[in-house]
Amino acid sequence: MQKALVVLSGGQDSTTCLYWAIEKFGRERVSTVSFDYGQRHLIELESAKQIAQLAGVEHQVLPINTFNALGGNALSGNEEVDNALDMENNLPNTFVPGRNIIFMSYAAALAYQKKITHLITGVAQTDYSGYPDCRQDTLQALQQTLNLGMEQSFTIHTPLMYMSKAETVKLAVRLGALEALALSHTCYNGQRPPCGRCAACILRAKGFAEAGVDDPLIELEEK
Amino acid sequence: MQKALVVLSGGQDSTTCLYWAIEKFGRERVSTVSFDYGQRHLIELESAKQIAQLAGVEHQVLPINTFNALGGNALSGNEEVDNALDMENNLPNTFVPGRNIIFMSYAAALAYQKKITHLITGVAQTDYSGYPDCRQDTLQALQQTLNLGMEQSFTIHTPLMYMSKAETVKLAVRLGALEALALSHTCYNGQRPPCGRCAACILRAKGFAEAGVDDPLIELEEK
Repeated sequence: MQKALVVLSGGQDSTTCLYWAIEKFGRERVSTVSFDYGQRHLIELESAKQIAQLAGVEHQVLPINTFNALGGNALSGNEEVDNALDMENNLPNTFVPGRNIIFMSYAAALAYQKKITHLITGVAQTDYSGYPDCRQDTLQALQQTLNLGMEQSFTIHTPLMYMSKAETVKLAVRLGALEALALSHTCYNGQRPPCGRCAACILRAKGFAEAGVDDPLIELEEK
Repeated sequence: MQKALVVLSGGQDSTTCLYWAIEKFGRERVSTVSFDYGQRHLIELESAKQIAQLAGVEHQVLPINTFNALGGNALSGNEEVDNALDMENNLPNTFVPGRNIIFMSYAAALAYQKKITHLITGVAQTDYSGYPDCRQDTLQALQQTLNLGMEQSFTIHTPLMYMSKAETVKLAVRLGALEALALSHTCYNGQRPPCGRCAACILRAKGFAEAGVDDPLIELEEK
């Protein structure tokens, strides 16, 4: 049986994907990687660590100091993020050009060393169409690039690619991932309890509402 | 007229490519980028800086701390490199999986911000066929990936891809790059004057010999 590596940001989608991978590949064949890239809120990495621990899978954090050297952006800069979907160049202001390409390339390099051939990422073009490096066509081209460039047969899995947030919530319920979602982090403003006002909080709340499920993160915080 | 970014390692091939880019795009439209990725010999970065200065083009160094965290390899580790073409997994022991994919992705991210659409790299599959991420098919797939993932129209130029080392030397002569080649660094053992025994030194010497040209680096050192 083959092994799988989940790119775990600590957010709702990658957490759901972790449980998807556990169901598909078996807990003992799944490991996770997160990137410490200068994100605005280190709480994301703390969430990822706690989620991997709860799920009982290996977790590795790789440092990336290059994005900050490349120049500022909202999620790793210091400016206030009121609405992460503000547009500049028709892209969200949280956009770092090629960031997901680089994340996936590092994940593949790690997978290469660990003899893992399946890579799982929680990107979804339904809700986040602003990020071109999270779309299926880019990831398909990247899969070919990585396979040619490393002489491997990686498969990049994107289980949430065409799901709405509500469908993702329902999938998480079916996979038994709700307890882990209570540990996940979504708020662009890094607040706990979540600010409820930023684009990420609003999107998450809408998904849970449409799925008719109570967000365990909110429940937890209100206790 | 469009602008170009040369990935400058400080070696013979990327130096020749810099002069190729200057001829093609004009000196004032060419800039360079190098990566401080934990290479064994920082003399490479010093060479790159001196070459960019001599050529009169902008030079930027981006840090990459991720490769070391991914695990050791000959060119960024501490072990002695007797013969960098020793094989492991049928690849040179200097191989970091996907390293060139990541270099080019960072170069594209920098180019994106600087409104540059042409990327130039000195890779050659003739002499270095061991590195799959330096081959034309990989770079072609990567170009598509970067263009989809950043919604850009990058062209990745690989002027030396099918040239022998001797042809590269002749090109350098025609482009007036010999003075810059005196500053370039090739030796895997980081020696100045070059050790003359490692695979990189031998390949360089063979190229100059076959081209019937004296290596200005050797001449310089012997003065």
